[in-house]
Amino acid sequence: MTKTRTRQIILHDPTLRDGQHAVRHQLDAAQLTAYATAADAAGVPVIEVGHGNGLGASSLQIGRARLDDRTMLTTVRAALTHSRLGVFMAPGWGTSTDLRTAVSLGADVVRIAAHCTEADITERHLGVVRELGAEAHGVLLMTHMASPDELAHQCARMVDFGAQAVGLLDSAGHYLPSDVQTRITALTQAVDVPVLFHGHNNLGLAVANSLAAVDAGATIIDATARGFGAGAGNTQLEVLAAVLERTGHPTGIDFRRLLEAADIAETHLMDTPPTIDSVSLVSGLAGVFSGFKKPVLAAARATGVDPVDLFFELGARQAVAGQEDLITEAAQHLHRTRQHTPKERTAPHA
Amino acid sequence: MTKTRTRQIILHDPTLRDGQHAVRHQLDAAQLTAYATAADAAGVPVIEVGHGNGLGASSLQIGRARLDDRTMLTTVRAALTHSRLGVFMAPGWGTSTDLRTAVSLGADVVRIAAHCTEADITERHLGVVRELGAEAHGVLLMTHMASPDELAHQCARMVDFGAQAVGLLDSAGHYLPSDVQTRITALTQAVDVPVLFHGHNNLGLAVANSLAAVDAGATIIDATARGFGAGAGNTQLEVLAAVLERTGHPTGIDFRRLLEAADIAETHLMDTPPTIDSVSLVSGLAGVFSGFKKPVLAAARATGVDPVDLFFELGARQAVAGQEDLITEAAQHLHRTRQHTPKERTAPHA
Repeated sequence: MTKTRTRQIILHDPTLRDGQHAVRHQLDAAQLTAYATAADAAGVPVIEVGHGNGLGASSLQIGRARLDDRTMLTTVRAALTHSRLGVFMAPGWGTSTDLRTAVSLGADVVRIAAHCTEADITERHLGVVRELGAEAHGVLLMTHMASPDELAHQCARMVDFGAQAVGLLDSAGHYLPSDVQTRITALTQAVDVPVLFHGHNNLGLAVANSLAAVDAGATIIDATARGFGAGAGNTQLEVLAAVLERTGHPTGIDFRRLLEAADIAETHLMDTPPTIDSVSLVSGLAGVFSGFKKPVLAAARATGVDPVDLFFELGARQAVAGQEDLITEAAQHLHRTRQHTPKERTAPHA
Repeated sequence: MTKTRTRQIILHDPTLRDGQHAVRHQLDAAQLTAYATAADAAGVPVIEVGHGNGLGASSLQIGRARLDDRTMLTTVRAALTHSRLGVFMAPGWGTSTDLRTAVSLGADVVRIAAHCTEADITERHLGVVRELGAEAHGVLLMTHMASPDELAHQCARMVDFGAQAVGLLDSAGHYLPSDVQTRITALTQAVDVPVLFHGHNNLGLAVANSLAAVDAGATIIDATARGFGAGAGNTQLEVLAAVLERTGHPTGIDFRRLLEAADIAETHLMDTPPTIDSVSLVSGLAGVFSGFKKPVLAAARATGVDPVDLFFELGARQAVAGQEDLITEAAQHLHRTRQHTPKERTAPHA
């Protein structure tokens, strides 16, 4: 256990990518520069930037970003002196061309993402990333929907395809620490590359889940300033850094400067830091993709259904990232069938 | 373990007491009524009300409450149909007369609080509470400053004095789950009465710490709507209720109505829900009483010292609740000795 307790953890910071979900992908160049400069000064190892859904995702369907991918990458690249530049891509939204452009603009770490049972779609793109000489990560989405064994199998596939690190996104913020412990343990036993974890805070457990991941052997943990991110937000970077140092895991980050970067994020990037409101809590319980929060609220308003009912309906339908069409369909279904519970006739204690 | 996993947990809700710290004790009668009515409708077992520091604490030194104790108790009592009414008292601020008044106005559950090594001061007041026929709880403050054995010894003393439940307040929000596990286990082994835990979220771990307390045998857990409370806030009630139910611990609370109560708390009681800002994070790391946040910020502004330095100074001095005078003194000391780090000469990576 001594070895585990002193293992260095690499904090991977998608504030400027996952945070985009919280502001409808509208971060501008001055905002990217302000935060990237501060995080770089604090020694944050990897700073990820992009549309909330990654390279190539800016679209009418899921929301157009204020800046195109090229501008975002060029802007953040120019702000970094030591930190490495990260990008995220889900095949289907992004293409090999997007990858080539990103690496040519200076992306150092490239994440290729797949739904938790569909690692096969990462093969070609992981190959492209390796060929381009960037660090290739393979990550699985909505991972609460698959068993530990299945996740380990899918990650082993991605290692075969060339991934130099693999891991799990708790895209819905659904995990308890024991869930993370079991799944990350399955991964570390199945692969020889670094294992990563990316949490969301819908159940107030993002920091605890990240600690559970570290205890189970993960060495790369995602976290964002003030938790800026989809839904109830991500694991809060400055909090996790402090807690990791306290539990004997150095991060290499200058804590005082990290606090300054987090303060800049709060004042420059967001209206208010994310909190766990009732719909985010229900979203996590129902196991719905965190990025669905704003479209779910819009669909609930448009149809007059209770967003709580709509989240549970989407959870029951096992909706996954990319199925934004399902939100409207489920809302209309609830509206038609009146399965929603109008506020005025809330059921008694059940 | 099966027994542990299905044990019912009593959620004790100090939203209208600990939350007062976040609004300088200025909640009015309409606010008390709105939240108490909603929490009662949800079936929350105990609703605690008062000045943030408890009965008799309203004062120039630590802040005058908008309403006197009598008005707060009468107002909340009138709103409750099933929930029990709770009060909190730290001897020194409150007196036996305050206790008699509170019980005569309908307080059902009375908490007598002491610094973690000073349980002896609770003897007389726990005796009064028992004599009056209310449920007597003995709670220790700033408990990260004492060892598990010491805490167990102090709690056993309070049981001898008549406490019908005893437990620990993580007043500084300093604990990791493993700290809670060790301390609550020591308590459950030392006493035969229910054990309670009250967390703060400075390290983003309030929910996880509460789960650790339950795993270690605690059966009464404090939590507040949206985490409304001192500093970075308390354990978030509606989140904890959902997570407890999911882990097999019934709470007897109607979850949909609890979400409505939390929504009412957000819209009626607070400007914004608590978040973990840089000073709250540092406060938790330094082990400083959460209720000090606003006075520390004021003293830092008045003297021009960095609040981060001031929190670490107060932590080094082992300041405890009630020592508000120490805040100004420490700020002036830092100012005089220039031990603070002005922003323009921040140290390089250390």
